[in-house]
Amino acid sequence: MAHIEFGNDLPGIRGPMAYRPETAKPLNALAEVLLRDDNNTLTRGERELIGTYVSYLNDCFFCQNVHGALAGHYLKCDTGQIDDIKRNFSSAEISAKMKALLGISGSVQKGGKQVTVPQIAAAKAAGATDAEIHDTVLIAAAFCMFNRYVDGLDTWAPQDRLFYVERAPRRAEEGYQSSVYK
Amino acid sequence: MAHIEFGNDLPGIRGPMAYRPETAKPLNALAEVLLRDDNNTLTRGERELIGTYVSYLNDCFFCQNVHGALAGHYLKCDTGQIDDIKRNFSSAEISAKMKALLGISGSVQKGGKQVTVPQIAAAKAAGATDAEIHDTVLIAAAFCMFNRYVDGLDTWAPQDRLFYVERAPRRAEEGYQSSVYK
Repeated sequence: MAHIEFGNDLPGIRGPMAYRPETAKPLNALAEVLLRDDNNTLTRGERELIGTYVSYLNDCFFCQNVHGALAGHYLKCDTGQIDDIKRNFSSAEISAKMKALLGISGSVQKGGKQVTVPQIAAAKAAGATDAEIHDTVLIAAAFCMFNRYVDGLDTWAPQDRLFYVERAPRRAEEGYQSSVYK
Repeated sequence: MAHIEFGNDLPGIRGPMAYRPETAKPLNALAEVLLRDDNNTLTRGERELIGTYVSYLNDCFFCQNVHGALAGHYLKCDTGQIDDIKRNFSSAEISAKMKALLGISGSVQKGGKQVTVPQIAAAKAAGATDAEIHDTVLIAAAFCMFNRYVDGLDTWAPQDRLFYVERAPRRAEEGYQSSVYK
């Protein structure tokens, strides 16, 4: 049972979001513009991967599976491949730019001041733009919020990881602001 | 100099917010509903105090001064009194409920799973409602995002703490969604 009574049995972040729609609205609007807006040189898959990696570092089961399944959907990777990236992105088959951005994300997860000048320089050398670095930092920071919201209220999450994989295509289609988001 | 070029010289979070208004909009909407909405049994001062305390734990100079000055403005405390609460809230002259909620906030700052059942029980015993516990967790989580956004991009902040105190009354009047928020 969660720490408070949501009045619903929805899993993960959906429980407190349905309980408090006034705060759910800007939270979902933030996720929509950060993770899905087409006016972005990072692909949706790359942005979901950043969120997945930070959720993994924060040990948030719900978020790392929801967003890991979405990243897999967009990047055409299976769960095992996404897990490999989470565990060791530096040896994964992703671009040098994404490796640099995931490095920055890992620092943001520890704390804002952990991001170093050499990390930023490495990202720029690998082709990352200022806008991509901005969004990487904000996505990583936002997942430090979402993960704490989900686990700080002790929400429940389906334990079968296939649950998330199977729902990813529909989630990808509906986005974060749909009232039927499940 | 910040890690990226914002194209403005605004301090703290205002730099990246002006650089990327698309994400600033839901961020400010979240702050407005969480910290200022009148339909809340936590006062604005209490909510700003939670944000201040988490920003202190995250060592974010800009946020702990902006929000500390706002908390002081609402609660009619000076900077020294706010600093005392940040350093040792358990011996401060605040309600037992606020002490319990600040305890929960400190756990959220470390990570969502750090919030304990006894902490929640203590907050409820001190009169905290489910809605107040929800908002405490989300405010603490949100400041873990805001602090990382501010410091992860290495924004600059005025070092004179009077700067923040002097501007607090106007900030309190204008709220977080004003385009003239300074």
